[in-house]
Amino acid sequence: MKTPKISEAVIRRLPVYLRYLQHLHEMNITTVSSLDLGQHLEMNPAQIRKDLAYFGEFGRKGIGYDVEYLIAKIKQILKLDRRLNVALVGAGNLGTALSNYNRYTNEKMKIVAIFDSFPEKIGTKIGTVKVQPIQELAKTVKEQDVKIGIITVPATEAQKVADQMVEAGIKGILNFAPITMRVPNHVYLRNADLTTELQSLAYYIG
Amino acid sequence: MKTPKISEAVIRRLPVYLRYLQHLHEMNITTVSSLDLGQHLEMNPAQIRKDLAYFGEFGRKGIGYDVEYLIAKIKQILKLDRRLNVALVGAGNLGTALSNYNRYTNEKMKIVAIFDSFPEKIGTKIGTVKVQPIQELAKTVKEQDVKIGIITVPATEAQKVADQMVEAGIKGILNFAPITMRVPNHVYLRNADLTTELQSLAYYIG
Repeated sequence: MKTPKISEAVIRRLPVYLRYLQHLHEMNITTVSSLDLGQHLEMNPAQIRKDLAYFGEFGRKGIGYDVEYLIAKIKQILKLDRRLNVALVGAGNLGTALSNYNRYTNEKMKIVAIFDSFPEKIGTKIGTVKVQPIQELAKTVKEQDVKIGIITVPATEAQKVADQMVEAGIKGILNFAPITMRVPNHVYLRNADLTTELQSLAYYIG
Repeated sequence: MKTPKISEAVIRRLPVYLRYLQHLHEMNITTVSSLDLGQHLEMNPAQIRKDLAYFGEFGRKGIGYDVEYLIAKIKQILKLDRRLNVALVGAGNLGTALSNYNRYTNEKMKIVAIFDSFPEKIGTKIGTVKVQPIQELAKTVKEQDVKIGIITVPATEAQKVADQMVEAGIKGILNFAPITMRVPNHVYLRNADLTTELQSLAYYIG
């Protein structure tokens, strides 16, 4: 069955559900209601039911969702059940933190190549991945079938790196640089922002 | 006028609006409609109007919102218009990246103290802030009137650090460690996750 076209808002909520479901699974909790999910995630339970109903009827009235089944199903929907190679450009502090974090998760989405433009970084290793010169990006993307790029370079370099990623055939970009980036329509771009969570905290502080 | 009690979901959306409004302001765009905001942020314009209407009537029919006024108003609502001191525990790669990022923003929320437990980190500087031993947390929180704590230590250490922050009188915690943390009800906790954006990217890749 072909999945219908789903709004980006729904797709962005699925990893949030997934994270909490994985936590429940670790706690040996086997079923969860949309009400529980809604309370924990501070979302409308009806919205959650609607989001999940796009992909079939998973929940059972009065019982809820089977945690393990829903984890597998969301991974399948997000296509996290297949190997997906990621390249990261910018082996600074944030790039290193992301690479280390990724190394310890057992997801199939893996950072397989890391690039930088600083000569002193080239050849050093983050985990088991050797930092390559940025000039090798295109070649490595092809050889290793890299589909996703993460940008953790300074703002001034970020657009240039994005252009190189697009040129090399990368299909999706996660950008951490605080700029408004331009990419062609066939490339999917997401901007990550470390400051929004911090800003919403201020409201609650006496 | 006392602000009415606002749902957490609304408070978490305000920084997202703020980020885009600041971008518009940098581009010298002076007004924006809820439709424009909705299209760019992939949200329902009616939801945006409703969120902003909690705080008064900012928008004008057929004209939209005044960008500069709305920025000032959201900062005021989120209490970002006053000085707010932040302490960070965990001077590793992510902690260093966050500290450096915070240093270059002109927000009034500032990381004024950094702590670590590794002897080789103590006394080193990130920007202008010297890394202190974790034992000095309580004293510094009091002396510098720190209200918010950021946790960027490994998962195994994170709960202990949170307990120390609570004990020291910190009111809000932003946790980057991938654990489910417990804090008392009077402390406001947010968990940041670097992986959700990456996971939603997978869906869009061929």
